[in-house]
Amino acid sequence: MHKPLTKQDVAEQIRFTRARKGISWQQLAEAIHRDPVWTVAALLGQHPVPESEVAVIAELLELDAEAVVVLQMEPYRGNGESVRSDPTIYRFHEALEVYGSAIKELIHEEFGDGIMSAINFQVSVQRRTDPGGDRVVVVFDGKFLDYAWKHAAQEG
Amino acid sequence: MHKPLTKQDVAEQIRFTRARKGISWQQLAEAIHRDPVWTVAALLGQHPVPESEVAVIAELLELDAEAVVVLQMEPYRGNGESVRSDPTIYRFHEALEVYGSAIKELIHEEFGDGIMSAINFQVSVQRRTDPGGDRVVVVFDGKFLDYAWKHAAQEG
Amino acid sequence: MHKPLTKQDVAEQIRFTRARKGISWQQLAEAIHRDPVWTVAALLGQHPVPESEVAVIAELLELDAEAVVVLQMEPYRGNGESVRSDPTIYRFHEALEVYGSAIKELIHEEFGDGIMSAINFQVSVQRRTDPGGDRVVVVFDGKFLDYAWKHAAQEG
Amino acid sequence: MHKPLTKQDVAEQIRFTRARKGISWQQLAEAIHRDPVWTVAALLGQHPVPESEVAVIAELLELDAEAVVVLQMEPYRGNGESVRSDPTIYRFHEALEVYGSAIKELIHEEFGDGIMSAINFQVSVQRRTDPGGDRVVVVFDGKFLDYAWKHAAQEG
Amino acid sequence: MHKPLTKQDVAEQIRFTRARKGISWQQLAEAIHRDPVWTVAALLGQHPVPESEVAVIAELLELDAEAVVVLQMEPYRGNGESVRSDPTIYRFHEALEVYGSAIKELIHEEFGDGIMSAINFQVSVQRRTDPGGDRVVVVFDGKFLDYAWKHAAQEG
Amino acid sequence: MHKPLTKQDVAEQIRFTRARKGISWQQLAEAIHRDPVWTVAALLGQHPVPESEVAVIAELLELDAEAVVVLQMEPYRGNGESVRSDPTIYRFHEALEVYGSAIKELIHEEFGDGIMSAINFQVSVQRRTDPGGDRVVVVFDGKFLDYAWKHAAQEG
Amino acid sequence: MHKPLTKQDVAEQIRFTRARKGISWQQLAEAIHRDPVWTVAALLGQHPVPESEVAVIAELLELDAEAVVVLQMEPYRGNGESVRSDPTIYRFHEALEVYGSAIKELIHEEFGDGIMSAINFQVSVQRRTDPGGDRVVVVFDGKFLDYAWKHAAQEG
Amino acid sequence: MHKPLTKQDVAEQIRFTRARKGISWQQLAEAIHRDPVWTVAALLGQHPVPESEVAVIAELLELDAEAVVVLQMEPYRGNGESVRSDPTIYRFHEALEVYGSAIKELIHEEFGDGIMSAINFQVSVQRRTDPGGDRVVVVFDGKFLDYAWKHAAQEG
Amino acid sequence: MHKPLTKQDVAEQIRFTRARKGISWQQLAEAIHRDPVWTVAALLGQHPVPESEVAVIAELLELDAEAVVVLQMEPYRGNGESVRSDPTIYRFHEALEVYGSAIKELIHEEFGDGIMSAINFQVSVQRRTDPGGDRVVVVFDGKFLDYAWKHAAQEG
Amino acid sequence: MHKPLTKQDVAEQIRFTRARKGISWQQLAEAIHRDPVWTVAALLGQHPVPESEVAVIAELLELDAEAVVVLQMEPYRGNGESVRSDPTIYRFHEALEVYGSAIKELIHEEFGDGIMSAINFQVSVQRRTDPGGDRVVVVFDGKFLDYAWKHAAQEG
Repeated sequence: MHKPLTKQDVAEQIRFTRARKGISWQQLAEAIHRDPVWTVAALLGQHPVPESEVAVIAELLELDAEAVVVLQMEPYRGNGESVRSDPTIYRFHEALEVYGSAIKELIHEEFGDGIMSAINFQVSVQRRTDPGGDRVVVVFDGKFLDYAWKHAAQEG
Repeated sequence: MHKPLTKQDVAEQIRFTRARKGISWQQLAEAIHRDPVWTVAALLGQHPVPESEVAVIAELLELDAEAVVVLQMEPYRGNGESVRSDPTIYRFHEALEVYGSAIKELIHEEFGDGIMSAINFQVSVQRRTDPGGDRVVVVFDGKFLDYAWKHAAQEG
Repeated sequence: MHKPLTKQDVAEQIRFTRARKGISWQQLAEAIHRDPVWTVAALLGQHPVPESEVAVIAELLELDAEAVVVLQMEPYRGNGESVRSDPTIYRFHEALEVYGSAIKELIHEEFGDGIMSAINFQVSVQRRTDPGGDRVVVVFDGKFLDYAWKHAAQEG
Repeated sequence: MHKPLTKQDVAEQIRFTRARKGISWQQLAEAIHRDPVWTVAALLGQHPVPESEVAVIAELLELDAEAVVVLQMEPYRGNGESVRSDPTIYRFHEALEVYGSAIKELIHEEFGDGIMSAINFQVSVQRRTDPGGDRVVVVFDGKFLDYAWKHAAQEG
Repeated sequence: MHKPLTKQDVAEQIRFTRARKGISWQQLAEAIHRDPVWTVAALLGQHPVPESEVAVIAELLELDAEAVVVLQMEPYRGNGESVRSDPTIYRFHEALEVYGSAIKELIHEEFGDGIMSAINFQVSVQRRTDPGGDRVVVVFDGKFLDYAWKHAAQEG
Repeated sequence: MHKPLTKQDVAEQIRFTRARKGISWQQLAEAIHRDPVWTVAALLGQHPVPESEVAVIAELLELDAEAVVVLQMEPYRGNGESVRSDPTIYRFHEALEVYGSAIKELIHEEFGDGIMSAINFQVSVQRRTDPGGDRVVVVFDGKFLDYAWKHAAQEG
Repeated sequence: MHKPLTKQDVAEQIRFTRARKGISWQQLAEAIHRDPVWTVAALLGQHPVPESEVAVIAELLELDAEAVVVLQMEPYRGNGESVRSDPTIYRFHEALEVYGSAIKELIHEEFGDGIMSAINFQVSVQRRTDPGGDRVVVVFDGKFLDYAWKHAAQEG
Repeated sequence: MHKPLTKQDVAEQIRFTRARKGISWQQLAEAIHRDPVWTVAALLGQHPVPESEVAVIAELLELDAEAVVVLQMEPYRGNGESVRSDPTIYRFHEALEVYGSAIKELIHEEFGDGIMSAINFQVSVQRRTDPGGDRVVVVFDGKFLDYAWKHAAQEG
Repeated sequence: MHKPLTKQDVAEQIRFTRARKGISWQQLAEAIHRDPVWTVAALLGQHPVPESEVAVIAELLELDAEAVVVLQMEPYRGNGESVRSDPTIYRFHEALEVYGSAIKELIHEEFGDGIMSAINFQVSVQRRTDPGGDRVVVVFDGKFLDYAWKHAAQEG
Repeated sequence: MHKPLTKQDVAEQIRFTRARKGISWQQLAEAIHRDPVWTVAALLGQHPVPESEVAVIAELLELDAEAVVVLQMEPYRGNGESVRSDPTIYRFHEALEVYGSAIKELIHEEFGDGIMSAINFQVSVQRRTDPGGDRVVVVFDGKFLDYAWKHAAQEG
């Protein structure tokens, strides 16, 4: 029995072929008319990609029929510990160590008890030029969800 | 020998007194002319607070002389595992699990090899009204730092 | 400086006093007109309790003024590892180890890519009589949230 | 010596072939006259599947003779850490972090000291329509087991 | 607010007083007409002790009124990592590392798919004299529970 | 260079072939005149198997020459975390969490300071019929070893 | 209820008083006619100390009546992670990382399958003068125990 | 690109071939005129082996040219968690849990503040016959290194 | 689909070929006119290597076209736990355990609140001869970054 | 029984009093004629401080007699996980993640197989002015130790 590809296998193939052929993530995102962060996350295995968009990507990156199926499947999401400690990604986790409680307190003060959704959610990565050195600006934008328990006693 | 207060002790005292007296974080930030995220992070023990600002806070929150010293000291930063798994904070870590690699790839594509600084850095928390439900918008804004190794062989 | 009570301190006091005075959780829930699971979770420190309801609880369980403030504060949620391995609670985690992937696959099949909210969410615990031995029936009931990324390219 | 397939290998093959051929879990469950959660869990390697049912599945999903043996074997159950942190599954663990103690207290109040069995147990996943957004309803239904120690001194 | 005793506090008090007064576990078990393992486990905080039995223990070990309440409460069970690595206890975990899979395979061969209950369960510790050195004999005795899923399709 | 089989590879082969050919562990144990728990543990890689017994097993289970060598080698013993959390095995670890300290206290009370050996040791798994449901009885039987430090000062 | 001292509390008191009064471990060992390693281990909480020896120690180190009881109790043994990483202790663990497998292979080659007992066991610490710098010589000396399973089939 | 052998691969090959051909570690050590512990550690991948000695080993154990290179390379040392919990090796770690602090205190008392080197270091494994059962004697022998900080202020 | 090489695969190939052909790291660094630490880190997968330099390395170490692409890709950086515990690397982590807080305090005293950058950063490894034994001198040299939050209120 | 101060307690007292009285680490180091890194490390509990130097520190920082004893005791060294993740200290660990293997390879190439001692060792922290921003220069300077096993066979 042939062991099928995993999302991780396809992600590594995509990263490799992209480097070999010199295709940018930006080009891939434009080819499927999607935001860049969504596109990269999806191609690295974090979102299912609709069939028509997979076809475009498959042609650009020479993916075979098996990879085409794999990219359409719902993923088991997450990156794992080794990715978390890469310096570029770690800085975001560190910022949450330092500012996480402050963000929480201010969400509660502004919105009440609840959370920012990570599902009804989008992210962007932008450059902001600055005389002191250009800046990376990452915007997390998620719907507020309050702890909404509909009590039986309140429904009557 | 009397055991001195920790930053954590003072943070708990501040959270409690704020709740008891009904003072908002926003009011505290305005009282010291600082951004809200910086103010909350600092009062929760993540930044040293300059002496003059501590004096303002101490009066508003009835802090004693020992707490006044503690707030000015440089911190050992971080929140620990139990804070990380609070749902409001966890959503940000989860977003990094799903989108962290994508953010990294796009930083590299736009800026080259390097990181967003978490030190030359600021955060804001805002509400964006939306007919589908208001949204929490958190902006991470840090200077780009490239892997800058000045090779001896290149200096001559 | 007096160190304020934590949610955990108040929870232990409530469990102890309840046992000493023989008051049931059911009675506490009825006294504040709330669902039982919400009531117990809130008194054990997992939800802020509105001021008027705290007043009722404080009288029944002889809580002092400090505890009354603490119960109204927003919590840092979670129970920690030692609670997770208690046999009564562990069985639920074990069920998720065995059936978690199946639940995920069926949520995706029925609703598409997304999650059951744990915020817009309620739980109930019921007894179902059964000739083979009565059964514990725990219902998890949360709003479905789909991975909703509003693409710039789709908005125009 | 040929290394035999694991339950995990077969599970990945099943997920892949199902996606490739467009067969739903519901169809597989109906084909073997089983509940959907049980069916998916079993095919993902969490329960042994009786021989006659394996035959039906093998034909639908083109499994070979080795996979047919593997599906009938008793499993070493569990999903592992990486599955636990997938957002769709994590929400259930988070709900237990927030409500686990409350569920435990109410089981003890209603039934006495003991647990809900995770062995004499079943789960269902249902959609409940709701004007505020449809809801995922997951029912955990297990026999109550009390801590039953038959003391020698009590047997006489 | 006075912080109530924990089960752990009472357990340490009992171990200490027992040593100071020279009372054996055996005597305590006989005083309440219970098996020794159950008695020790309960007094160390792993089972609630009925009121009448607490009264007997409290008199023998000079426990105060607060401890008397605490011993009757349902416990959050478990011993934690540091206890697990004590050599006397570790040998049992090691035996399970070496023989656990074999025990599992033989339970399945004899009883089918399922488990030995740890709830409907008892343990005894005995000495067996032996010319090669006396032996510790620990008997685990629990009801077999099979994976019993009552399928809807089978009930009709 | 050909990579030799591991004990784990052979164990998986044995489990698979046993299932395919319908040979019971009991039959294998009888074929080599050994106790069942010892036999299963050894074939799963936890004990070296003497050459003459390997020959019997190899014929029954069609093992090749390399596997025959591997089964005779001394093992690096242990099962790892994923096996430990299988429900059938976990119940034994849970029983030790609840009763481990009690077993320790009673060993000390009966034998003095020391341990039950896990080396000079045997285990059996038996069925005990019971009107309330048949029971799994697992007997741990190890030589008592006391903390025996021969002090220089005591030897003179 | 007064919370009794732990072995750890008494160990810290002993380390402190020894330093304050300038009494060596060697003197304490001689005072009770014991080997030094046993004496230090016991006073740091790793062995119960017989009553007559406790009396000698208590007088030298000004221990009170409660500490005298605590030193006689059986310990829950172990030092924990933080002690393990102290450089002086870590070197021994590192040596086992590098040479542990070699020691195991040679024990098996010399004695057959089994272990060195850590219970019927003693340790000594000595200085060996050497022109290249004096050396620490630590001798681990434990009884060999072979995997001794007395098979029913072999007893007849 | 062919993936080169690791030290671990060669170690497994050596253990297997040694078993298949019935060559003892003692014979291998004698063939290269080295101590047994050093020899086994080096062949299991913990030390680089000089070229002339590799040649001897390669002939005895039929190693190919690639393995010959690998054995000469400097290793990344260590055995990992699974090896640490093998009972034969675990007893040494347990002994350090029980006696580690005592060894540390006595090193400090005899030599002052510092450590036993694990680099300028050797180990031997010996049998000591004893009427109560033969004993495994493992001698750790390392140079004492004191915390030697040459202060600028002290050098003038 | 062919699974592409990882940075780790190429690193192992480089270490092996370097040993086989007897090429030093120093030679490789000189061939590409780079500092030695940067060169080794980059070839072991911690930095992308520019195309022209890859060409030089590829010829010296006989790397194929796929490895040439892989060496140019941006890495996911880090070495993992097993590398961290190698004695040669561990000593640096231990030095940070002992002196890390002191380094932090002195950075704050000299520079104010902030960090040494690990990105705008270089390292060198040198030998310093010394009559008491030659010394390894490792210099960490990074730009100081202060916690620079540009407050809105301060910008006006 | 009074519980003695720990090294950690004294360290916190020293950090607090230093801040309250405005005394620099540099002043403390000069007062005892020691290097700054050694002084700070010792006062934070990582080295025993000789009696005469403790006297100087105690007067400057108003330490009591108990603290004076504690500072002279040998420490159990290490800072623990929470300190390791402070951003200022973390950058050093991250640098070792990225460059640790390279440092190891170059130590082996220059010195042969062995380590840099962390015991016969010193550290300095310096400022180096730089037009691109001043730099933190931390020098690790330790004696090289080679893996020196004196083989019996080589001694004759």
